[in-house]
Amino acid sequence: MKSTANLLTPTPSAYTYPLLIKQLLVNAMSLHGDQEISYRGQMRYQYRDFQRRIGQLANALTRLDVGAGSTVAVMDWDSHRYLESYFGIPMMGATLFTVNVRLSPAQILYTLQDADTDVLLVHTDFLPIIAQIRDQLPRIRHIVVLSDDGQVPAAGMDVAGEYEALVTQAPAGYDFPELDENTKAVTFYTTGTTGDPKGVCYSHRHIVMHAMATALSLCSPGGTQRLHRADVYMPITPMFHVLGWGLPYIAIMLGLKTVLPGRYLPEVLLKLRETEKVTFSHCVPTILQMLLLGADKTGQDLSGWKLVIGGSALPPSLCEAALAKGMDVFAGYGMSETGPVVSLALTPASGAPATREEDLRLRCSTGQPSLMVDFRVVDEDMRDVPRDGLTRGEIVLRSPSLTPLYAKKPQASEELWRGGYLHTQDLAVMHPNGVVQIVDRLKDVIKTGGEWVSSIEVEGLITQIPGVQEAAVIGVPDDKWGERPMAFVVAATAVSAALVREQLLVHVQAKRLSAYAVPELARICLVAEIPKTSVGKINKKLLREAAPATV
Amino acid sequence: MKSTANLLTPTPSAYTYPLLIKQLLVNAMSLHGDQEISYRGQMRYQYRDFQRRIGQLANALTRLDVGAGSTVAVMDWDSHRYLESYFGIPMMGATLFTVNVRLSPAQILYTLQDADTDVLLVHTDFLPIIAQIRDQLPRIRHIVVLSDDGQVPAAGMDVAGEYEALVTQAPAGYDFPELDENTKAVTFYTTGTTGDPKGVCYSHRHIVMHAMATALSLCSPGGTQRLHRADVYMPITPMFHVLGWGLPYIAIMLGLKTVLPGRYLPEVLLKLRETEKVTFSHCVPTILQMLLLGADKTGQDLSGWKLVIGGSALPPSLCEAALAKGMDVFAGYGMSETGPVVSLALTPASGAPATREEDLRLRCSTGQPSLMVDFRVVDEDMRDVPRDGLTRGEIVLRSPSLTPLYAKKPQASEELWRGGYLHTQDLAVMHPNGVVQIVDRLKDVIKTGGEWVSSIEVEGLITQIPGVQEAAVIGVPDDKWGERPMAFVVAATAVSAALVREQLLVHVQAKRLSAYAVPELARICLVAEIPKTSVGKINKKLLREAAPATV
Repeated sequence: MKSTANLLTPTPSAYTYPLLIKQLLVNAMSLHGDQEISYRGQMRYQYRDFQRRIGQLANALTRLDVGAGSTVAVMDWDSHRYLESYFGIPMMGATLFTVNVRLSPAQILYTLQDADTDVLLVHTDFLPIIAQIRDQLPRIRHIVVLSDDGQVPAAGMDVAGEYEALVTQAPAGYDFPELDENTKAVTFYTTGTTGDPKGVCYSHRHIVMHAMATALSLCSPGGTQRLHRADVYMPITPMFHVLGWGLPYIAIMLGLKTVLPGRYLPEVLLKLRETEKVTFSHCVPTILQMLLLGADKTGQDLSGWKLVIGGSALPPSLCEAALAKGMDVFAGYGMSETGPVVSLALTPASGAPATREEDLRLRCSTGQPSLMVDFRVVDEDMRDVPRDGLTRGEIVLRSPSLTPLYAKKPQASEELWRGGYLHTQDLAVMHPNGVVQIVDRLKDVIKTGGEWVSSIEVEGLITQIPGVQEAAVIGVPDDKWGERPMAFVVAATAVSAALVREQLLVHVQAKRLSAYAVPELARICLVAEIPKTSVGKINKKLLREAAPATV
Repeated sequence: MKSTANLLTPTPSAYTYPLLIKQLLVNAMSLHGDQEISYRGQMRYQYRDFQRRIGQLANALTRLDVGAGSTVAVMDWDSHRYLESYFGIPMMGATLFTVNVRLSPAQILYTLQDADTDVLLVHTDFLPIIAQIRDQLPRIRHIVVLSDDGQVPAAGMDVAGEYEALVTQAPAGYDFPELDENTKAVTFYTTGTTGDPKGVCYSHRHIVMHAMATALSLCSPGGTQRLHRADVYMPITPMFHVLGWGLPYIAIMLGLKTVLPGRYLPEVLLKLRETEKVTFSHCVPTILQMLLLGADKTGQDLSGWKLVIGGSALPPSLCEAALAKGMDVFAGYGMSETGPVVSLALTPASGAPATREEDLRLRCSTGQPSLMVDFRVVDEDMRDVPRDGLTRGEIVLRSPSLTPLYAKKPQASEELWRGGYLHTQDLAVMHPNGVVQIVDRLKDVIKTGGEWVSSIEVEGLITQIPGVQEAAVIGVPDDKWGERPMAFVVAATAVSAALVREQLLVHVQAKRLSAYAVPELARICLVAEIPKTSVGKINKKLLREAAPATV
């Protein structure tokens, strides 16, 4: 129960400042009007143009009957159009739905229906998908085509026009309304391993508080791993994926030059970094791997590029390779449901790490909880586990930026929030200094002969073997032990299953790994590729389904 | 009218995170438990002790019948006790009243009565004042004595005990309640030039948002003028004065080593800087002057000390002297009513100033509006003045951290907030790049022969004259011109009124000043001292009252 004694009652004329996305623009536009936004280096304009275009976008959408409470879906690669949608659509009081374009047409259909989409903004690349499912989307009143060359291909369906033409023809002034800060601003879907995709929702307040707290966590370090106002920002996490981790809002709020790279092609990204002088980005480990390979080919130096890694754990070997290229790389942690950033693997203020090994360990850790995030690691009775770096528990969270529900899924919502904390289903340990390390997903942890094995730990040790590019470890049923670990390894030809096992046994000898964590030879499979989810994570669900046939 | 369409309704178990002062501690305590808090270098403890003591303070106050809605007044110099009060008292749901100890006993009495004070925490230095007025404060149930040596002098009145004894004897655990974020957290009084002191009020939300936005503004610069996690913080703006500008909350939130210097004695401050390795402070120009004089005497170098100057304009000559000592000095702007910080004289991200003169001008400017602050300069019809660096208008504000009213003063509250913006009564110009420069207080501007003269401008030019320490310019009635400027100058013996006039006429020649802005010889008075208000600002009200007799 909240106490309501002693509440302040503003004088009638006072402005009770709601936390709205439009407030992020107030000073950005006043102080940085001539700052640049570049789309692939082929189109560029200034913040003052951006501000005008947001008004034009709102007027164009108004003509398409969009208003407070409407849902506008966007299917695009990272573009100035997406950035305009991030602001203009929620600022109207409408909901921006960022569609995951990597889902199957059936899943895209499901999410467009479930989100009650009224208007769809769709890049020409995805028109064929929409044409397939258009007749099952009767609620969608208008489709706007996003085209890089201004051409609208024959789509076999009615379209309201092309984005650039609609925006530039619309009047500029738009009086964005005063909204309640708890107005729904954004929705998107998280594809769990079971059931239908679930709709995550964020209000204006959630987004503003995430921008403030994450920006402050990133800007306040003393030395390395620091974002600042002279940085040039380029997202390499798709803007349809958890709001590009919220960084586009931060970049505009701070007045940074912002580069939107379109579809992610490693050579384009590397070229943009050089020509646009990009200094701050974020991506998944797989993309970092591609960037490093690309830079190896051209001999490009990547000094001065700060890179936050999320989506999956940052393997120490990959971190080391990036540091060797001059990058300032470190991990971040969060989920679709959590804003998303809730921790960052920042070096403690107390000083630089003593050794290179310690530096790597810190940069690859789950990190320090961000400001305002009540970040707990708890046992099954919701008691904090000891801060000993050993005892495992589930990460549960409170912060001003967590999704307050799954849309239309009351039971899943209550399950997510049971006991008043958001349950991440990530298993972690907490070190004495408050630094967190995830050891596994609750559902990925392997129980063998009554003992727990961390799939992530074994994966990490396998990827350290020279020649190994990637590894995935799952639990498979075993009559004697209940479960046993099974490893899938992508590697150069010199690497054999026997070598992998031999190397893991070295860690057992050195007491860095339990003997029961080492898979049997028959359960170490060298494969050409490891299946991924739509957002680039290892698809363990698929591996588990395929596993019995493999052995 | 706010639209309430499209509001998000959290699932029942979700935690709807209110913005509370206690949330600022969540990560500070988890990540920086061994960080230090030092009181004058003579007592020191760690953040984890601070956390325990806040609980003990709450339990000690509970025993004195303090609860939600109570008002607890504090009269102290800057101390660990004050820092504990900043958190512990509002976290209980009570209101912290920071008493301005520099007011007269009559004004202190007025404010203690007006604030409905229930319990008073008072330093031994101020016991004689309270003894004088105790019988007129029947509402105050308990008086707690704050004593540096643990001794309680005979006060001629009942006291509940000594702070340190009460706190250390109280149990540690205290379950701070879940409050509504609009709960009143702090109150204090602003002494205008007319009428009774007015009570400014801030809620938990105001304080949290001020801490976040101000910290982000201070942490995000690329080069100089930057706060970061490795800084050591020492306030030199009294903690009773506008929450020490809010910086103590920021320091704890970010986990900084914090040094509390007690009563401000220049030699103690300089010594603490050296022994505690202080790197970030803030003060009024007068204190900076004293610090520079003190350092001159000992030959102390002040390199690496970042210093924000507020309270009055930073004179370029003083700024230059501080830079010469190695300090990274710059101005900030705000008022009791505004959170307080609403702008900071940060170097634009676009790069370092081209010349030393430009650097000085930027560091001494009113600065760039802080994040989230809707900072306008408007004419009498509330239209924005052109951003030309020339056209004057009043600064009006909206931000998440402004006082929503003056307590018990509905008319003054409505006047403050007329038209939905907080009126500062400061006259300023806005430059094309969004940087603001205050030219005068609305009520201090001088109207002579139909033309406006900025008292601040003339003061600035006079203080540039070698040998001049301080200057104040006011308008005095004049039969012919309506008003004429009159200058009061504190200077070395070599400086005469004729010299001051001669030097001002040089600026007229160079077209830097209008001829009518130069006071007549008889209106340039060399004085031993310029009267100050309780917070160290020039008391122009007193000068105006004294002026007719002077000429």
